[in-house]
Amino acid sequence: MALIVQKYGGSSVADAESIKRVAKRIVDARRAGHDVVVAVSAMGDTTDELLDLAHAVAPIPAPRELDMLLSSGERISMALLAMAIHSMGFEARSFTGSQAGMITTAHHGAARIVDVTPVRVREALDEGAIVIVAGFQGFNRDTRDITTLGRGGSDTTAVALAAALDADVCEIYSDVDGIFTADPRVVPNARKLSVIGAEEMLELAANGAKVLYIRAVEYARRHGVMIHARSTFSSGVGTFVLGPGMTVPAGVEGAEGEEMEEPIVAGVATDLSQAKITVIGVPDVPGKAAEIFKIVARSGANVDMIVQNVSAAATGRTDISFTLPKADASAALRALADEQPQVGFESLVHDDQIGKLSVVGAGMRAHSGVSATLFEALSAAGVNIEMISTSEIRISVVVRGDELADAARVVHTAYGLDGDTEAVVYAGTGR
Amino acid sequence: MALIVQKYGGSSVADAESIKRVAKRIVDARRAGHDVVVAVSAMGDTTDELLDLAHAVAPIPAPRELDMLLSSGERISMALLAMAIHSMGFEARSFTGSQAGMITTAHHGAARIVDVTPVRVREALDEGAIVIVAGFQGFNRDTRDITTLGRGGSDTTAVALAAALDADVCEIYSDVDGIFTADPRVVPNARKLSVIGAEEMLELAANGAKVLYIRAVEYARRHGVMIHARSTFSSGVGTFVLGPGMTVPAGVEGAEGEEMEEPIVAGVATDLSQAKITVIGVPDVPGKAAEIFKIVARSGANVDMIVQNVSAAATGRTDISFTLPKADASAALRALADEQPQVGFESLVHDDQIGKLSVVGAGMRAHSGVSATLFEALSAAGVNIEMISTSEIRISVVVRGDELADAARVVHTAYGLDGDTEAVVYAGTGR
Repeated sequence: MALIVQKYGGSSVADAESIKRVAKRIVDARRAGHDVVVAVSAMGDTTDELLDLAHAVAPIPAPRELDMLLSSGERISMALLAMAIHSMGFEARSFTGSQAGMITTAHHGAARIVDVTPVRVREALDEGAIVIVAGFQGFNRDTRDITTLGRGGSDTTAVALAAALDADVCEIYSDVDGIFTADPRVVPNARKLSVIGAEEMLELAANGAKVLYIRAVEYARRHGVMIHARSTFSSGVGTFVLGPGMTVPAGVEGAEGEEMEEPIVAGVATDLSQAKITVIGVPDVPGKAAEIFKIVARSGANVDMIVQNVSAAATGRTDISFTLPKADASAALRALADEQPQVGFESLVHDDQIGKLSVVGAGMRAHSGVSATLFEALSAAGVNIEMISTSEIRISVVVRGDELADAARVVHTAYGLDGDTEAVVYAGTGR
Repeated sequence: MALIVQKYGGSSVADAESIKRVAKRIVDARRAGHDVVVAVSAMGDTTDELLDLAHAVAPIPAPRELDMLLSSGERISMALLAMAIHSMGFEARSFTGSQAGMITTAHHGAARIVDVTPVRVREALDEGAIVIVAGFQGFNRDTRDITTLGRGGSDTTAVALAAALDADVCEIYSDVDGIFTADPRVVPNARKLSVIGAEEMLELAANGAKVLYIRAVEYARRHGVMIHARSTFSSGVGTFVLGPGMTVPAGVEGAEGEEMEEPIVAGVATDLSQAKITVIGVPDVPGKAAEIFKIVARSGANVDMIVQNVSAAATGRTDISFTLPKADASAALRALADEQPQVGFESLVHDDQIGKLSVVGAGMRAHSGVSATLFEALSAAGVNIEMISTSEIRISVVVRGDELADAARVVHTAYGLDGDTEAVVYAGTGR
């Protein structure tokens, strides 16, 4: 008998039929003797529809009211889910973020969890009820106002509840079977991983993998929560994300006693969501790079990779390239153009046809030659590398966007990650 | 400078455009220097759509969860309304029923208000904000659960807030201009009343008039709240509903100093929603009527009018007829049929083709001959009366349903209620 926290996203509760299917799944876990707490997102497109309404009545909706509005989406899904469970003969109780004790900062739209006091959740569990909690939302103690947690909020709700309740596992359900060695829509013979380290998962998520949100994985790692990423549509085991000191659950491939070769590379991530800006002819004097990235930061853009060329001795000028989310590019370009006279650069080049490929593996720390394999594979495939950046457990390269898929496939093969069969690909987006 | 509570129903906030129109109306009241608190219903058909969803996941939805579900409808409308006001440059703050201090019994789906502690509403008013409160919902202190107030809930929310805040007036907006001497769709030259007594309003509402809910009028009468029933779609004065000791506001027709002939009859109400059941051949012994109406009450039916004929000496048996809502008739019939052997009646007759016409007026107390006018008018029009019941300020008769409209018109004329022009009739239902 364990305490299990489960999280179901919007596509898992998109309509009455899906809600009944999820209810049955929850009841099965209860029947197996477990205590079950569920964090649930708003149904299907509810959040987008509410946002559309907000923008129809106000060009810039007041943030407090927007959170009040959006938080109603999870109230609907959680009440329906509790009813569905109830009508299967099991006691179920739904709680809003504030009822469940999700205390957050007052930052509307992107509040951060500061404390979790799930008193009512515990009471309900003690009385034998299945508990359904609204994902994505919380409550600020000082303003007494409803808040929302921003992107990936429901995953974070689930992990934070699992931490506060000292749950045995936090199961995050989506429409994919788990974490793959690559996006199966890009690399057809990608393999599902039974286990992945939390650090590796963070690097994969930060570099394009969409199954789990960075924020939730980071919270889980810091608070010692074991995540199990699995599919709403199958009963098979998914992928366990293990933080420091955690061991593979018994019975799972890679569990103690079972033979497992530790792979050097856990997976290959691909990302087409970035653009590249090159600032050409920057005076090669100290402080210019700092000046440029201060301007970019003020525009609200999140810079990812940065490359500075060696300056040409003849001109005393250099070029600086960086990548950032496509959505941030125009604001960054405008901000830079406004400050061109002060900075003294010659021109700006914008390129939104790039792709980023990242190879992630904790084994990289102990093995040399990992990057050589990457560069050789890309070279043999005729793929040109435009930028490179590395961390302790990751190598990322920027290539042409239309070459990204081919690049991912050859790199996947080069690291010996290919599976024997094609992965099952669902129609959804992975969330 | 006054404190005004306004209530807008679902049809007044059915879409983004309506919400902006209502926001403008609220802002106009604020610009005129008033403090404004608004109770708002869920948008258009939201509540019905949520009910459909509930029944799609659970045949008999758990009442606690149903209230959680339905209460999200007003959260959506109130947040959108607050945003719309905000974007017009005015400070607006929305509060759920529990945030606004609407304390209720724990009776899910039909909770009654036991206390109103609008601390946050007052704080917000003191800070100069317009306050938007979710109608229809409250909070139980013991269970700490969300409740809903049932039919007419948002009107009751508005009146209860007006009482707790000691507001100058509670404006209830709908798609009709106010209270008419008859339903303008039935009697085309019905006149709008400037003023009506709360008692008269209660009798009209109880007998088919749909503009205001009985429960809200009763709460207003008991707590000394002046209701102003008016139209969302025009800026004209509607109808003031005056409780004991209240005086007509200055400038309104009927205000002190203005000449006004007190009418004996305030209005004519019509009602096609009732059915008649006749229990034939009831043994004429003491206690039989009580036995019958206990059975009917246990079936959940709300009996309205009752008529018992003089018993036929030869048989020692009598017939008892009563009216009740059409929706309750089949349950009542089944319950009576089940107990036929015990009660000893001969048969049951069910008639759902009846119409009820009621004449209401506080002046009846002091005037004789009011009923004679009614009977003469109906007789001259060839309308047969099947049942009669009276209160201190009302006479009701049951006639054939297809004769109800004609009957209402001749009675309206007979009491001198006809206006000079045809009333404007809106497409809506009056709510």
